[in-house]
Amino acid sequence: MSDLKLPSRAEDFSEWYNTLVLRAELADYAPVRGCMIVRPYGWALWENIQQALDRRFKETGHVNAQFPLLIPRSFIEKEKSHVEGFSPELAVVTHGGGEELEEPLVVRPTSETIIGHAYSKWIQSYRDLPLLINQWANVVRWEMRTKLFLRTLEFFWQEGHTAHATPEEAEEETLRMIDVYRDFAENEAAVPVIVGRKSETERFAGANETYTIEAMMGDGKALQSGTSHNLGRNFAKAFDIKYLDNNGVLQHCWTTSWGLSTRFIGAIIMTHGDDQGLILPPRLAPHQVVIVPIFKTDDEKARVLECARAVKSELTAAGVRAISDEREGSSPGFKFNDWEMRGVPLRVEIGPKDVAKGSVVLARRDRPGREGKSFVPREGLAGAVAETLAAIQKSLYERALNFRTSNTADPKDYAEFKHAVENGFAYSFWCGGGECEKHIKEDTKATLRCIPLEQPGETGKCIYCGNPAGEKAYFAKAY
Amino acid sequence: MSDLKLPSRAEDFSEWYNTLVLRAELADYAPVRGCMIVRPYGWALWENIQQALDRRFKETGHVNAQFPLLIPRSFIEKEKSHVEGFSPELAVVTHGGGEELEEPLVVRPTSETIIGHAYSKWIQSYRDLPLLINQWANVVRWEMRTKLFLRTLEFFWQEGHTAHATPEEAEEETLRMIDVYRDFAENEAAVPVIVGRKSETERFAGANETYTIEAMMGDGKALQSGTSHNLGRNFAKAFDIKYLDNNGVLQHCWTTSWGLSTRFIGAIIMTHGDDQGLILPPRLAPHQVVIVPIFKTDDEKARVLECARAVKSELTAAGVRAISDEREGSSPGFKFNDWEMRGVPLRVEIGPKDVAKGSVVLARRDRPGREGKSFVPREGLAGAVAETLAAIQKSLYERALNFRTSNTADPKDYAEFKHAVENGFAYSFWCGGGECEKHIKEDTKATLRCIPLEQPGETGKCIYCGNPAGEKAYFAKAY
Repeated sequence: MSDLKLPSRAEDFSEWYNTLVLRAELADYAPVRGCMIVRPYGWALWENIQQALDRRFKETGHVNAQFPLLIPRSFIEKEKSHVEGFSPELAVVTHGGGEELEEPLVVRPTSETIIGHAYSKWIQSYRDLPLLINQWANVVRWEMRTKLFLRTLEFFWQEGHTAHATPEEAEEETLRMIDVYRDFAENEAAVPVIVGRKSETERFAGANETYTIEAMMGDGKALQSGTSHNLGRNFAKAFDIKYLDNNGVLQHCWTTSWGLSTRFIGAIIMTHGDDQGLILPPRLAPHQVVIVPIFKTDDEKARVLECARAVKSELTAAGVRAISDEREGSSPGFKFNDWEMRGVPLRVEIGPKDVAKGSVVLARRDRPGREGKSFVPREGLAGAVAETLAAIQKSLYERALNFRTSNTADPKDYAEFKHAVENGFAYSFWCGGGECEKHIKEDTKATLRCIPLEQPGETGKCIYCGNPAGEKAYFAKAY
Repeated sequence: MSDLKLPSRAEDFSEWYNTLVLRAELADYAPVRGCMIVRPYGWALWENIQQALDRRFKETGHVNAQFPLLIPRSFIEKEKSHVEGFSPELAVVTHGGGEELEEPLVVRPTSETIIGHAYSKWIQSYRDLPLLINQWANVVRWEMRTKLFLRTLEFFWQEGHTAHATPEEAEEETLRMIDVYRDFAENEAAVPVIVGRKSETERFAGANETYTIEAMMGDGKALQSGTSHNLGRNFAKAFDIKYLDNNGVLQHCWTTSWGLSTRFIGAIIMTHGDDQGLILPPRLAPHQVVIVPIFKTDDEKARVLECARAVKSELTAAGVRAISDEREGSSPGFKFNDWEMRGVPLRVEIGPKDVAKGSVVLARRDRPGREGKSFVPREGLAGAVAETLAAIQKSLYERALNFRTSNTADPKDYAEFKHAVENGFAYSFWCGGGECEKHIKEDTKATLRCIPLEQPGETGKCIYCGNPAGEKAYFAKAY
């Protein structure tokens, strides 16, 4: 564990985040600027995220595949808005096998183009539709200002790419997948999110419509945590993805894409973490329970370790991800701090008196100190642990939702609006004009995060220009 | 499904392989020369391989992580044999974000260097050892002659990288992991392998010792299917990976690395496939069972589909990966051929008479025609299916082992040796001299595949020079 002191969140939220990522051993800096090493603890968290999402993708009819990392540069240039969006961020391979390449290759920043090319070969008729493929992959975008997990040159994600016969089906798919992300965020990560669509300015480069889930971080800023794009026929036309419909007419397909990345680990850290370190939601935590044996004499040690191991077996058999920390030469206090820093949701303390009494101490990570401690009988412990983990999961979600509610304002005027976006979200009517959006950004650094799918069902006046407005939107500073 | 005709293996083994990969929809060519798209069916197979290996890695104490794709070129140059081995194969990123980079970056061809750099930061004392990390990743090597799965510019693999306090522990780990590969190959993929060590010529660039599993393909050639390297202190010295031992003395670590790649899919295809197409081992097959409903009238259709769906549910509930092929407009005969091409181990045929009689037909993929067909009662079908799948798994292994035995010679002299390596393996005494190895390769194109760990325990004369030889080795032409 790194020796850096963890500042409080109030003191310096950004430094708290950076230090926490290192001290919890989630990730480390790579020798190449802006790249990241995801350490075993961080990768185990990502693997749990992958499983939770992959199950949902398969349940909704998707299959996985793997497309190439290297893309001919000319591919990126085929879709007009796409090339404008991605050109500044490309990493380019110019040499291979000691020779200069005839055409430079780009390391994929996203895969719409290379997958579009494949789909144009694979799709012949309406019988081949819908085509519903996802891939788990690494991508590279040459970002200037980087931060571990949140914005790195290389990052890890899944990207779904689907092709459909009709615009209705494509829109349905786009919405289905943003709802899969919402469900995952809320029910696995305990991260409350607002589901909405992006304004034109904030859309994916090449999309007709982008849907997003937006979460509020512990400093009141927004984090875009997953997006789903309706690409219309833009890529189908650029890559000639066509199908013969059941009347024998050749038609362009309608495509979608959707992605969620290792950035989501940042969302988990900044939603739940406290001044003692990380707090992981039980459903995704690599270790849900850490058992800390406490003893002084050799005799005590024998009895306590025997009990700790039995408890570990019992919990493991009940499907709980439990470890026992038997490190020699570290005090129980050191172990408490260490696992608090690493965010293990529940600690089981076992000392000689507990062994004698046939009970253990449970200590909840989300409620530090005495408040989160309880004595629980050894008998039926697995059941009590499962209940406590479920309670922690629920409590983390509610706490985060309350925090978001408390830090979301419905400002009366632009003066209040400006104040609101200093430390949270502003939920305001917006006329739909890009000019208003631009001025707001210039004035406040807040961007339009999304126009939520759920609307109040009334009309009002644009918070900036005062003109009639049919919809409300969330504005916030964002990562 | 592609319309290319599948040649017989005898006719053109290489073309049989290429066509099969395309027609079974395992993979496709990418727009960049030598790159590959792994299609959903191929990726599902790889996911099953991943699970089978990952479980074994975790059981032997390893954890997963993720290291960067991009490596400073100077890193590759730090270990002398490593740079010589990999320099000719590098893909180089020279531009990022529209600017020329100060130092070019290479796309990882393997990760000893970048991981060595990280280990030098993470490892302080003997308490940090052993460090046992694996990653699932893509790597790029600029190969000139490529073939889907067997040799592609980008491929997918796992690479384990471990650091130890003593040379004994490193050697133990190296051998443990080659045995994990052997166990996986034999018991999951039904691919018999010879476990042995490589000669100096054939070793990994930077290793003191390379262990390999070698399999015989359907044309008698060898395929190196997984390797495990004892890297001694070569990378520890190049990257300054040191630990404080329990006497307070600073020591270099001993490191290992081991990998198995999507190339193994090629091993499965060329070990088990026949002139009708692919044959997948049940334990790894994405679909273990395909149910084909057979009917003419609407009335028959209703009864047969009802039965097919019930059978599917029953098999799925019993943990069998089963699908029901209800495609409209395709005949049962077309479906039989299609799934035979794609190697599904077991077919369940259900027609109106079967429904009436309360039975189904099982057709084994590994025994085409009448010989592989049996009538089985509906009642207790899941049990019969499980037994048949186990029998197919066993039979595939035995058939492959018999094939290897029949095509392995113990030649009396060099003339016989030259004949033997035309269509199979030669198992011969070898003096250990690189010169003999080189002459053999020049004469016959056969290379020394490995010196098997199991030796006859006697001595003999080198098959090439006739000098005394303490060990026997396998020689063969290889992929």
